Amino acid sequence: MNIILLSGGSGKRLWPLSNDIRSKQFIKIFKKPNTDASASPNANNPAGQKAAAFADDTYESMLQRVYRQIKAADPEATVTLATGKSQVSAIHNQLGEGVGISVEPCRRDTFPAIALATAYLHDVKGIPADEAVVVCPVDPYVDEGYFAALHQLWELAQQGTANLVLMGIHPTYPSEKYGYIIPETKDTVAKVSTFKEKPDAATARQYIDQGGLWNGGVFAYKISYVLERARQLLAYTDYADLFSRYDTLTKISFDYAVVEHEPDIAVMRFTGEWKDLGTWNTLTEAMEENVLGDARLNETCRNVHVLNELGIPILAMGLQDVVIAASSEGILVADKEQSSYIKPFVDAIDQQVMFAEKSWGQYQVLDAEENSMTIKVTLNSGHRMNYHSHDKRDEVWTVVSGKGRTIVDGMEQPVKAGDVITMAAGCKHTVIADTKLQLIEVQLGNDISVNDKHKYELEI
Amino acid sequence: MNIILLSGGSGKRLWPLSNDIRSKQFIKIFKKPNTDASASPNANNPAGQKAAAFADDTYESMLQRVYRQIKAADPEATVTLATGKSQVSAIHNQLGEGVGISVEPCRRDTFPAIALATAYLHDVKGIPADEAVVVCPVDPYVDEGYFAALHQLWELAQQGTANLVLMGIHPTYPSEKYGYIIPETKDTVAKVSTFKEKPDAATARQYIDQGGLWNGGVFAYKISYVLERARQLLAYTDYADLFSRYDTLTKISFDYAVVEHEPDIAVMRFTGEWKDLGTWNTLTEAMEENVLGDARLNETCRNVHVLNELGIPILAMGLQDVVIAASSEGILVADKEQSSYIKPFVDAIDQQVMFAEKSWGQYQVLDAEENSMTIKVTLNSGHRMNYHSHDKRDEVWTVVSGKGRTIVDGMEQPVKAGDVITMAAGCKHTVIADTKLQLIEVQLGNDISVNDKHKYELEI
Repeated sequence: MNIILLSGGSGKRLWPLSNDIRSKQFIKIFKKPNTDASASPNANNPAGQKAAAFADDTYESMLQRVYRQIKAADPEATVTLATGKSQVSAIHNQLGEGVGISVEPCRRDTFPAIALATAYLHDVKGIPADEAVVVCPVDPYVDEGYFAALHQLWELAQQGTANLVLMGIHPTYPSEKYGYIIPETKDTVAKVSTFKEKPDAATARQYIDQGGLWNGGVFAYKISYVLERARQLLAYTDYADLFSRYDTLTKISFDYAVVEHEPDIAVMRFTGEWKDLGTWNTLTEAMEENVLGDARLNETCRNVHVLNELGIPILAMGLQDVVIAASSEGILVADKEQSSYIKPFVDAIDQQVMFAEKSWGQYQVLDAEENSMTIKVTLNSGHRMNYHSHDKRDEVWTVVSGKGRTIVDGMEQPVKAGDVITMAAGCKHTVIADTKLQLIEVQLGNDISVNDKHKYELEI
Repeated sequence: MNIILLSGGSGKRLWPLSNDIRSKQFIKIFKKPNTDASASPNANNPAGQKAAAFADDTYESMLQRVYRQIKAADPEATVTLATGKSQVSAIHNQLGEGVGISVEPCRRDTFPAIALATAYLHDVKGIPADEAVVVCPVDPYVDEGYFAALHQLWELAQQGTANLVLMGIHPTYPSEKYGYIIPETKDTVAKVSTFKEKPDAATARQYIDQGGLWNGGVFAYKISYVLERARQLLAYTDYADLFSRYDTLTKISFDYAVVEHEPDIAVMRFTGEWKDLGTWNTLTEAMEENVLGDARLNETCRNVHVLNELGIPILAMGLQDVVIAASSEGILVADKEQSSYIKPFVDAIDQQVMFAEKSWGQYQVLDAEENSMTIKVTLNSGHRMNYHSHDKRDEVWTVVSGKGRTIVDGMEQPVKAGDVITMAAGCKHTVIADTKLQLIEVQLGNDISVNDKHKYELEI
């Protein structure tokens, strides 16, 4: 099976755990299967041990969960992430360097993105044009049955059942959040009669009576089919050409470019578990435990979830139907229903990014003053930063754990805990981690900005 | 007027803003009078400016408020704080170096503490033995009328109305939290008939019908009176002797040692505003604004108070009757009624102190790892740390703002933003702030502890 996972969106709806550069699919909130349940703390016991931290290896992200599930269902699956540049580091950090990534040079809506990823599969990965591919968002919360269904979807496309084969999700309630697919019959696989936009609840009920299904954005096609559409609409010749011209492409959705013009579409009914974890309300429903991170709830709390990425304890008393989420970006305390209206409030918070996962590890802002910033940098073993310089700030590194090497203006030297490295503005520098390495970076200058950075090639 | 302010207690009931070394009276939560109200943010406006930070000069602590009120009511008042060693730095930081402090070498209950402070007034400050003194807790929330009443109380004692003159607070409801004073008559000043322990509500109602008054722990006496009792009970000869023998004194309360044996006690009825801000519930009632620090409440929040000392925003949505308090010690989210049951939960949180006010400024823990701690140190202009060394840790200072001088193993050198100073274990060091000075301190070692500290004299 070939599968393209669409990894999009900046996702402010799960603030403060998601932000402009950490999308919700990267938050580690799901307990991995087969991890030791006896280590689970009793959240109601004030004297109890604090819960496992987020950094703990017993938790995985939506991305890691779905990737693990695909590989379990089909170890031979070719998985390609279709995403923007800003997510590449986090994807490599969470899935390793081996995963296929079709990087969109900029955002150009779903048709260019799917066309580019399909071209990547064919031209870069060498998948024959007559093979089918399944496109699926990266963030549904699903069980094994879903992946078996994806495989069936792929086989239907492979067999030429239709030019496009969609997954239709059997509705569990008359939702106003989804578009609906109306099939010609109520058979498991049927021709699509028509598509409907997000309805009100009464209309949704009518659709469901007609056998209507939720459109979860999951579909399959033969590679040749989408490449042909790309040839017509984007003058596609090959992947490299499409990639280089990407910023000139018109923004157009896959629905508008392809689906609306295609008479030969089938839909496969899926009745298994499928959840869209887009808000705190739905996300916390999928959590196995009420507490992630260091938090205590007193005995009068009811239906309270706490997700605490900070290194300080949270105490919740006498709350009902509340979610508390804390990270170095901020703290949310919300009634669960109300939490779905979060977006305009987060948009109004003008804030620098305080935490980021990079391909080499992660950084966290510890303190920001007018003319200085203090940052904790964690490099994974065997990784290094880009070789870079800044125009307008000096930096001081104090290594607090691990071993590695620094290169400063071409001079390499070994470093270990306790070593201090000072770098004036303009000086080129990097650090290479021979073991996991942590350092405290103090930035000093009148105009500290993430954009003040020049990158250089480094031969080592 | 001579006044002794009793500044006690570690106060975990207002966690996380109060802790083992920061008592509730030091938290800056009250808006100073005559500060610009137009700068006040609209907490319900998501696009509104963030509220003033705690560090802002427009806020004052309970201690600062009561001290300012005393000085406004009587600019000539001699104010002495009776307190333990751990509060001396914070008191000097908040009130300046000029305030009188009677430091208890250890905790020995209220009679030794009051005797020591009275001896301090007489023997150190030179107040004549026939002058009266008023004793008052540091943390009532009161207006000007209270201080006028304190002055009347002082005059009554000065005139010899009785050996002890108590303030009796006119009860506003049949509280079970206070002891009651039953006067012989309902006159403004009356002889005390008897004292009653904290009653149940029905009994409290009976006391109030009899003209009973709350005992708020406020009383006045002539210095000679308490010194005479100290002579009898503690073999007092002078302040220095009492101070040096303080740890050998028996723990005994002022009530038990003095009040219960004294037939000549008067009480003065006080009918003005008086609040005991001992819990989040009562404290938030006294706040002028719902938000202190960076927080936004959406329009569905009702009776929500947020006190945020952290440098990151808090967003509250759809909450009712909730207090949110956040500091570098932790985060409390509590139903206001429930918040009064906080103590056992806080006792169970085994935590290092993350923030402290010192006589020279303050420090804040930014990060704690197994073998390192990162701390932000702020020195007030003209102040310096103790000259000290550590056995088991190295330290690195990176100055991030301001100017000053470091002394390391006797060597003095000027420092400014960007300078880095490394200090190996065993090395003696201090920093002197010529302007307000901030530095990032990285501590490195296998056994980092606040107790690993040797202090030295420094001649400068």
